[in-house]
Amino acid sequence: MERRIILQMSESMPDYADTTIRVRYAETDQMGVVYHSNYFIWFEVGRVELCRQLGFQYKEMEAADDTFIVVAKASCRFKRPARFDDVLVVRTRVMGSQRRMIRFGYEILHQASNELIATGETLHVICDRQGRPKSLPEKFRRYFPLARHSDSSPSDNTESKEEAVP
Amino acid sequence: MERRIILQMSESMPDYADTTIRVRYAETDQMGVVYHSNYFIWFEVGRVELCRQLGFQYKEMEAADDTFIVVAKASCRFKRPARFDDVLVVRTRVMGSQRRMIRFGYEILHQASNELIATGETLHVICDRQGRPKSLPEKFRRYFPLARHSDSSPSDNTESKEEAVP
Amino acid sequence: MERRIILQMSESMPDYADTTIRVRYAETDQMGVVYHSNYFIWFEVGRVELCRQLGFQYKEMEAADDTFIVVAKASCRFKRPARFDDVLVVRTRVMGSQRRMIRFGYEILHQASNELIATGETLHVICDRQGRPKSLPEKFRRYFPLARHSDSSPSDNTESKEEAVP
Amino acid sequence: MERRIILQMSESMPDYADTTIRVRYAETDQMGVVYHSNYFIWFEVGRVELCRQLGFQYKEMEAADDTFIVVAKASCRFKRPARFDDVLVVRTRVMGSQRRMIRFGYEILHQASNELIATGETLHVICDRQGRPKSLPEKFRRYFPLARHSDSSPSDNTESKEEAVP
Repeated sequence: MERRIILQMSESMPDYADTTIRVRYAETDQMGVVYHSNYFIWFEVGRVELCRQLGFQYKEMEAADDTFIVVAKASCRFKRPARFDDVLVVRTRVMGSQRRMIRFGYEILHQASNELIATGETLHVICDRQGRPKSLPEKFRRYFPLARHSDSSPSDNTESKEEAVP
Repeated sequence: MERRIILQMSESMPDYADTTIRVRYAETDQMGVVYHSNYFIWFEVGRVELCRQLGFQYKEMEAADDTFIVVAKASCRFKRPARFDDVLVVRTRVMGSQRRMIRFGYEILHQASNELIATGETLHVICDRQGRPKSLPEKFRRYFPLARHSDSSPSDNTESKEEAVP
Repeated sequence: MERRIILQMSESMPDYADTTIRVRYAETDQMGVVYHSNYFIWFEVGRVELCRQLGFQYKEMEAADDTFIVVAKASCRFKRPARFDDVLVVRTRVMGSQRRMIRFGYEILHQASNELIATGETLHVICDRQGRPKSLPEKFRRYFPLARHSDSSPSDNTESKEEAVP
Repeated sequence: MERRIILQMSESMPDYADTTIRVRYAETDQMGVVYHSNYFIWFEVGRVELCRQLGFQYKEMEAADDTFIVVAKASCRFKRPARFDDVLVVRTRVMGSQRRMIRFGYEILHQASNELIATGETLHVICDRQGRPKSLPEKFRRYFPLARHSDSSPSDNTESKEEAVP
């Protein structure tokens, strides 16, 4: 029983977006390395840049379309420490999207050595300004295409179930 | 030429408010001490607590009275380092207030030793939600009394001039 | 094939530690709720407090025993927004420990309503000051007991495999 | 009685350094603008970049020369709000230096409009890793020249007195 996922992503759309950040002194802790919560801030820097490279500005999405991409789940694996003044690449991609949900994946790389510093994932729910879940407006669907399954065998929806969060 | 300042502060109102915070790991930096920008966050913790002890909740002031105490100037002198897990006292007082302005003063003390860690001052402008300056609503005047001068010799207004900021 | 886990935790040791934090203005974002990366900072506040309630100070563990509990993985599910000035309970427990690893679990609760705000988990590797993995020193074993399995059927080690991280 | 200050700054050294930052979502607060403590973090980003443009790396100064530029005083005037996703220019210059002290000045400008967002100043004491004051090592004197006074009338040292901090 074959299962195919057809992403309706246009040819011209980037698979991922890279943006660089330089580690700030304020982001280190007394262990001499970056304090871990900052990675989640960098993920957000990556998301905002991915939106820009896809073709829209996240701030406009909030202000003009009353559409907020609210974090429902976030996780990170810290592979190697990042240090003050390091230049890091934040690589962000859309891992999946549904009518009311988007999943992003991240890699943080040390720019000079290309070493993997961390990987992460965030799951977001589309909400309005009051925090009520809503569907992603039509105009943004091209950036976050629904994964269409060529079949719908019941055994396939393990992930969907897991995604029925939060 | 005598100059008297009459503070209309009721007897029962506290001169200052103390609140304690415990230094978080996230607040340290690779020098092994607290990163300095955190002191300004602690000052705000002190302001919010002072408001509570004066008799109102700052969050209600924003939500119910469309009144925001916006920071226009902030300064801090760092006397001794604060370290992870230290318990610190944030002592906050109103240094002066005018129709559209409030000035707060702060001392950060090491609770165990009573040593002075830092002192600071912030100047705030009263604004509405859109950031437009406004007068402090009548109901809050009792907490932030106007300094009335019994005379108005021109030489007295050095501070007022300096306060005509920002 | 029976499997029993015997935790060598003494009767007197707490199952979890509660500590409260009050949401700071600095922790909110323009959505009007707490910015999500702050939850990971609160988890750390909870860990430090759990250590204290277990019977030792984390700062001493670092300074006197050259033992650092380094974050290798962190995840959080955000259930309900937290808001400025909310008082939150951070409930922290040890979820499991091995010779070189400790897993903590967290619940963030709204103190007034007892509503669940978030849940999370962090996996830590024991390291020395240079970031090299080491075994947890003997003196801390009583706080982080090894899970002993009464048998060792191969099917039991799914979790161990998963834990062979990072 | 004439007083002249001769700065021994070589012709080739920049008068100031510009670096740009993009406002992060995490840096906003529920007022919808940047939370004010972040400006002090940006000042530090500016200092680090100024060091690089002057010809050395601040991280090397710490690691190789046991020389730390510790913040003793910091102040900021907030002129206009900065908002999420704004691109800001952090303009940093050396305002003065003595054997054991350096003073930096900052302007934060909105890149697109060139509007002034904030100005600030920080005073730093040269310390070793243990936080003990020390003189700036010889090799860094060219970047932070001593202000030489052509006379030394006692009435001139108001600033020096004020600088005898912290």
